[in-house]
Amino acid sequence: MTEIEVLPDAAVLIDGERITWVGPRREAGGLHSAFRIPRSALDVVEVTGVLLPGFVDCHTHAVFGAPRLDDHQRRALGMDYRAIAAAGGGILESVRDLRARPEAELIELTRGRIRTLLSHGSTTIEVKSGYGLTLETELKQLRVVRELAASEPVSLTATLLGAHEVPPEFRHRRAEYVRLLCDEMIPAVAQAGLAGACDVFCEPGVFSVTEARAILTAAQRCGLGVKLHADELQGSGGAELAAELRALSADHLTGISDAGIRALAASPTVAVLLPVTMIFLGSGRQAPARQLLEAGAALALASDFNPGSSPAVGLPLVMALAVSQLGLRHAEALNAVTVNGAAALGMAADRGQIAPGFRADLVLCDVSDWREVAYWVGGNPVTAVWTGGSACRLLPGPVSLGRHVPT
Amino acid sequence: MTEIEVLPDAAVLIDGERITWVGPRREAGGLHSAFRIPRSALDVVEVTGVLLPGFVDCHTHAVFGAPRLDDHQRRALGMDYRAIAAAGGGILESVRDLRARPEAELIELTRGRIRTLLSHGSTTIEVKSGYGLTLETELKQLRVVRELAASEPVSLTATLLGAHEVPPEFRHRRAEYVRLLCDEMIPAVAQAGLAGACDVFCEPGVFSVTEARAILTAAQRCGLGVKLHADELQGSGGAELAAELRALSADHLTGISDAGIRALAASPTVAVLLPVTMIFLGSGRQAPARQLLEAGAALALASDFNPGSSPAVGLPLVMALAVSQLGLRHAEALNAVTVNGAAALGMAADRGQIAPGFRADLVLCDVSDWREVAYWVGGNPVTAVWTGGSACRLLPGPVSLGRHVPT
Repeated sequence: MTEIEVLPDAAVLIDGERITWVGPRREAGGLHSAFRIPRSALDVVEVTGVLLPGFVDCHTHAVFGAPRLDDHQRRALGMDYRAIAAAGGGILESVRDLRARPEAELIELTRGRIRTLLSHGSTTIEVKSGYGLTLETELKQLRVVRELAASEPVSLTATLLGAHEVPPEFRHRRAEYVRLLCDEMIPAVAQAGLAGACDVFCEPGVFSVTEARAILTAAQRCGLGVKLHADELQGSGGAELAAELRALSADHLTGISDAGIRALAASPTVAVLLPVTMIFLGSGRQAPARQLLEAGAALALASDFNPGSSPAVGLPLVMALAVSQLGLRHAEALNAVTVNGAAALGMAADRGQIAPGFRADLVLCDVSDWREVAYWVGGNPVTAVWTGGSACRLLPGPVSLGRHVPT
Repeated sequence: MTEIEVLPDAAVLIDGERITWVGPRREAGGLHSAFRIPRSALDVVEVTGVLLPGFVDCHTHAVFGAPRLDDHQRRALGMDYRAIAAAGGGILESVRDLRARPEAELIELTRGRIRTLLSHGSTTIEVKSGYGLTLETELKQLRVVRELAASEPVSLTATLLGAHEVPPEFRHRRAEYVRLLCDEMIPAVAQAGLAGACDVFCEPGVFSVTEARAILTAAQRCGLGVKLHADELQGSGGAELAAELRALSADHLTGISDAGIRALAASPTVAVLLPVTMIFLGSGRQAPARQLLEAGAALALASDFNPGSSPAVGLPLVMALAVSQLGLRHAEALNAVTVNGAAALGMAADRGQIAPGFRADLVLCDVSDWREVAYWVGGNPVTAVWTGGSACRLLPGPVSLGRHVPT
């Protein structure tokens, strides 16, 4: 993870959606003959800056209605999550909002937010459901992702997170909700092809390790990849379960135990860290990133973009905070949002590198040194983005976060 | 500080550089007759979004050469400030860079960075010297500020921070450097009119309270306002000294003592908090903002924009972190970068409010609810900026942080 190959004066040859050659610019002149490309078919784009692989944001909850502004202030004034829930906030506020909001409105709100993430360099974005918590509303959320995947120049991968929270109507019969997930929701989503993976919020007070194992095993039986929100605040065996199931990723991990670290290091499961979340929640803690790295775990970073605990619109800030707060090297931070972000989605052979055969997702940054992408805080260094070989129209100027109306 | 007046469908009348009227849009139709303005002289601009007072960034070190990328990573890997200094980093790295770099190059580097801050809504920016530490190079840094104040559409106020660090050539005769500051540098800067205030980095290991008192008293004799970097990591009487001197502001304050809090609360001195800095330095600590507020201190927020401990390019992120990390209400965060930011520069009667008589510095944000400006993390909600009544050309699209070359 500490290795980055920097080519100072480079050229990239793209054919269709794929990269076919990367090398020194002085060698690019002969490419048309080497690759038997007629000169007239060659479209040359000269750029200055630092060209990076498109960023992979492997953990977001990008489909939601209104931002949870009240929760932000309640937490600032010292309310804990129980008091916030009692006051009408928390995840269930977003659930009520999403259930009530028309699909077309969710599509347009999410479109603005996805474009914002893309403008900050994220060319592949995982999007979880989890604000519906009924079969119909989880499907609605996943259809929003499908619609935007088809109409926006960005790769979206959908994950079913029906086990984000026990819905209020099942509060006193949680076993029934787990059965509903296993027997109806997961098979229906898998059959509709609306998600490639299934995730569970595994944490004391949300879903237990036993419940998570049942849900994720059901998902694997239906052919879905599995992921876990694990050990976010305390170590409860979530990371160990992820390793046992050979999950794509175990995410959060602020409270991971030593046994959990060892389990992840010995598994193919990627540890996904979300440094903005702990900061936005007002905590001074972070996941033990260096211990994970030193143990040999693969580490990715993501935004956790969501209305409650991380309204973070891009990965450059996540990278800078990963250096400052998680103790990563700049190279580790960059690898964590490219190669390893792709690995956390099972796409490491396809994207996350500027190399022949890889998808031509590229990000141009207006900086002198590539490390600056993981250094400046709160700005956007991205000046151009290509996905699948095509230049994207970025948001003109500042970022639109989507104008919303209350439900 | 908790009060914000929100006008839902408002109009602002500007005459030259000043605001002359604010009120409901439905009352704006009669303004031309009420103010005896010929209809033909009225230039109407319709905008949608949230219009805020221009932000006042009352603490930056915006004139510098290269970003200190190595320091960022050294700190991530566990080096403390002594080890970083021994490796060639720290403030003295920026001092060597600034001393060697031609003034014209500093002007262009700083121009890009000031435009970036402006694009994020900062219409008034305090800029400190402190990377020269000789009379000639401190003057060079302050001339950069004067040149940009004259040529960019933003208000810049310069502060002499000759007491940022003891320069290496005075390491073993620090009393001589304090005398040089008091007897030569401060009078020369005041006489040249190149700074309105003087600041001292008052912290154990940098300048003591006794040295800071001598320097700031000399500054007051020369007619300069005074400010203090106080109690950044430990309480050493810096806040008390600021109150004793009736300083414009005491800044940082992570380690402020209870006595310091009481002293500031009983004084006109503004407490300036810099939440990005502690995060960028990898700390989990923050200044006791709520204790300061509850004691009755006036509180402002700033970016601390500098290459070593806070490469933070705008105040929206600072506001969001202030809510999350300092426990501020959204209204307190907004007041802290407008009214109180202006107070920390002695300009509270002139800017920081959308009110008749105030300077027409305005920021338009593409959000539905004003609180979102202090909520989304890492994006830029600002879509338009007016300074002194004139629309600014913002950076086209993403932000330019200035392409630099090594010295």
